[in-house]
Amino acid sequence: MNIMFAVSSGRYTRANFILPLLIIIQLGLHTVEGVWPLPQAFTSSTERYPLNPQAFYFGYGKQSAAQQGCSVLDTAFKRYFSLIFPDYSSGSTGLETFSQMVYQDDFGSYFVNKTEIEDFPRFQFRGILLDTSRHYLPVQAILKTLDAMAYSKFNVFHWHIVDDPSFPYQSSTFPDLSSKGAFHPMTHIYTQSDVRRVISYARLQGIRVLPEFDSPGHTKSWGKGQSDLLTPCYRGSTPSGTFGPVNPVLPSTYQFMEKLFKEVSSVFPDSYIHLGGDEVNFSCWKSNPDVRAFMQKMGFGADFTKLEAFYIENIVNITSALNKTSIVWQDVFDYHEKIPEDTVLHIWKGLPEVYQTELSRITKAGKRVLLAAPWYINHISYGQDWRNYYTVQPQNFSGTEEQKKLVIGGEVCMWGEYVDATNLNPRLWPRASAAAERLWSDEKQTSSVDSAFPRLQDFRCKLVRRGIQAEPLYVGHCKHEYQGV
Amino acid sequence: MNIMFAVSSGRYTRANFILPLLIIIQLGLHTVEGVWPLPQAFTSSTERYPLNPQAFYFGYGKQSAAQQGCSVLDTAFKRYFSLIFPDYSSGSTGLETFSQMVYQDDFGSYFVNKTEIEDFPRFQFRGILLDTSRHYLPVQAILKTLDAMAYSKFNVFHWHIVDDPSFPYQSSTFPDLSSKGAFHPMTHIYTQSDVRRVISYARLQGIRVLPEFDSPGHTKSWGKGQSDLLTPCYRGSTPSGTFGPVNPVLPSTYQFMEKLFKEVSSVFPDSYIHLGGDEVNFSCWKSNPDVRAFMQKMGFGADFTKLEAFYIENIVNITSALNKTSIVWQDVFDYHEKIPEDTVLHIWKGLPEVYQTELSRITKAGKRVLLAAPWYINHISYGQDWRNYYTVQPQNFSGTEEQKKLVIGGEVCMWGEYVDATNLNPRLWPRASAAAERLWSDEKQTSSVDSAFPRLQDFRCKLVRRGIQAEPLYVGHCKHEYQGV
Repeated sequence: MNIMFAVSSGRYTRANFILPLLIIIQLGLHTVEGVWPLPQAFTSSTERYPLNPQAFYFGYGKQSAAQQGCSVLDTAFKRYFSLIFPDYSSGSTGLETFSQMVYQDDFGSYFVNKTEIEDFPRFQFRGILLDTSRHYLPVQAILKTLDAMAYSKFNVFHWHIVDDPSFPYQSSTFPDLSSKGAFHPMTHIYTQSDVRRVISYARLQGIRVLPEFDSPGHTKSWGKGQSDLLTPCYRGSTPSGTFGPVNPVLPSTYQFMEKLFKEVSSVFPDSYIHLGGDEVNFSCWKSNPDVRAFMQKMGFGADFTKLEAFYIENIVNITSALNKTSIVWQDVFDYHEKIPEDTVLHIWKGLPEVYQTELSRITKAGKRVLLAAPWYINHISYGQDWRNYYTVQPQNFSGTEEQKKLVIGGEVCMWGEYVDATNLNPRLWPRASAAAERLWSDEKQTSSVDSAFPRLQDFRCKLVRRGIQAEPLYVGHCKHEYQGV
Repeated sequence: MNIMFAVSSGRYTRANFILPLLIIIQLGLHTVEGVWPLPQAFTSSTERYPLNPQAFYFGYGKQSAAQQGCSVLDTAFKRYFSLIFPDYSSGSTGLETFSQMVYQDDFGSYFVNKTEIEDFPRFQFRGILLDTSRHYLPVQAILKTLDAMAYSKFNVFHWHIVDDPSFPYQSSTFPDLSSKGAFHPMTHIYTQSDVRRVISYARLQGIRVLPEFDSPGHTKSWGKGQSDLLTPCYRGSTPSGTFGPVNPVLPSTYQFMEKLFKEVSSVFPDSYIHLGGDEVNFSCWKSNPDVRAFMQKMGFGADFTKLEAFYIENIVNITSALNKTSIVWQDVFDYHEKIPEDTVLHIWKGLPEVYQTELSRITKAGKRVLLAAPWYINHISYGQDWRNYYTVQPQNFSGTEEQKKLVIGGEVCMWGEYVDATNLNPRLWPRASAAAERLWSDEKQTSSVDSAFPRLQDFRCKLVRRGIQAEPLYVGHCKHEYQGV
């Protein structure tokens, strides 16, 4: 028996972020119900091999690009040993599949069935968004989510770190942003060391951290620690005392953003950065005489989408100069088709008819796109809504084959209006896992939601066994129940 | 400063279940936002007294009916000391109110404001139903729920212990019921000792345990460990191999029920017992020739509601002979108005128009009634659905004053299709607390859902501080967040 890992790097990965796109495990599956998400090719037999935890170890195949010293795999080997043999106290995505194949018989002995697996992800970007502005999430809660993400082969943690309600990111350049804009300046912030911890923990799980600093809207909390950043709204000819989106007419705005994004770009090593750009309300800009004068000067007339486009273009230029590729919400495309070449558009609006039309439009313009709209998992309803997440078809829109390839992946969004660490885990899991299989596995092999059901139930019990508060899909039980305290 | 407890017993309480219906605390409230549910009379001033935890103790007032040696209060004094002063490691409902009034200033010192409180519950029955059949709930999860129930002044734990999917109650008379009918005969059962532990834990929190053994429907799991109990269904003239409700025509059925309820009545000391009686499907009875012959013999014609009534009457007689008062779901009344005098009807069906009509009908017949229909809290939706629970008016139906008095209370039902220990707490709290205030507090003083909102947010943070995974109501933060692991 041997386990071989043949690791190659995908075009979307960064130098030190190993994404095992191709894994061949010559080994032996209890039952195919046990693996989630489904590998691309999977042949199992009833022939089973006993595993002796005392003698079991992982090694690198001779032909593998990765060898001893690869910290991600070395650490994963150790982590996954405990996950595979939970009776013994002491992980990467290939390892995840293997760990789900090992089972215990009624007497506690470990077995694995003879199995051949060839695997790679269908989409390169498989993300989860956490919103740490509407509610603060303690670092421990984020790390726990990273664990669970790895179990479902998610590989991007989209950190929507700041927004209107609070600014928990402790900037070294602008410390007032969190000391005045966080819910509490000491207990409800992410220090530089917290951020580093999250990034390095994620990296060892094969997960990239994509930070979002959304502007010019969604920035109320920024204004508390940075005066003159937000647009003063007017009532008639006098300031009303309230503030709107970031002020796009002042040079000081762009000086501030340049410094902030310079810091952010160095703190977050990922080559991508999310710039937001959604839901900009124009009423405050309209009310402000300086903004109106600027519009005149620039020849924008009364079209405020041109002002928004002007602002976003400036921010994208700042981050491009820092060697970052930008991701922005679809609003930016909707109002401004002349966006920089390699910018990725992020679709968040609407029902299937609506987002399918947007997929067509954006890919027709030759832009890469990420789909989030059908996976707003913070929206809850009674019953098995995971079925809706499972049956999403990200490439089901009218367009050429070339257009379909521009869909680089998808994202499960957990917006924070009603979510904090008390209910994050049961709301995320296993509902997000339904989206995970859609993003990882072959479309044809995973066309039946009914045949996915028992496998997802089984996977959910594995999550519970691993300490994740994953909620039940329906009536039934797990061998090892969450004990509730 | 003195704290006096004047304890009297209500008509609904049993000898050793002390329900402090009237509590007068001559003391000093930080802010009225801090107390949930709202006391009946509450006058607070800004005058505040410092509390020294080193010297603080509870005592019995000289005029109090309860004195040292009252185990419920003695234990509650100790428990509430830790809840009031969480920095110091070491209840009853009056104590709960007081514990919410103590606050810390920015320097950590404890204070209480000068306050006069007079308090008693509006309804005597304030229950929560947990369903341990559709999913097994570990004992720890039940005890934790009892803690949280006491914080919201719930006083009845309605234990829907068995149902179709599983029979986790380990009967000493019929051990096969759980060994064959539980999800697992050893890990997914409640032993006699587990049940005693739940009852005694609940008792010390001022909570009664009301067991439900629902029949004749909802009994699939019973059939696994008790042959000839369920009705064999027929296809044409031969048995189909499937089984329906309890077989109401065999004398052996009633002999079995007599023995089972004899055991249950002694294990569960509460004077009430819940007999279910809901959702009886007649198709299997109709198919069975023996049942049809019995119908002929009894002169029931083709009216199977008469057969159901016959069955329920027999079961009620069995439990009456055991000195228990019966509670049954409304179906029993709907099909059978001739039910024993003191039986309590439990309304679970429909929207306000529907359950208000039922409230009228049942109380017009002089029967006591419990309202559960508007508080099916297992049904979830996006947003602040607690507002719907809060605005329920249990006495808002057409009827005389005498009829209104027959509404003895209400119940929050957490059915288990999609709920186990992984998501129980955030689904219950603080949503159930909205119903708790409706059941405890004066109707007029709690007419505004908007003014309840900040008080409920504050109470939710107190629950989190006490270790309950109570989910957030909206954007914001707690001083002490749940740490997520």
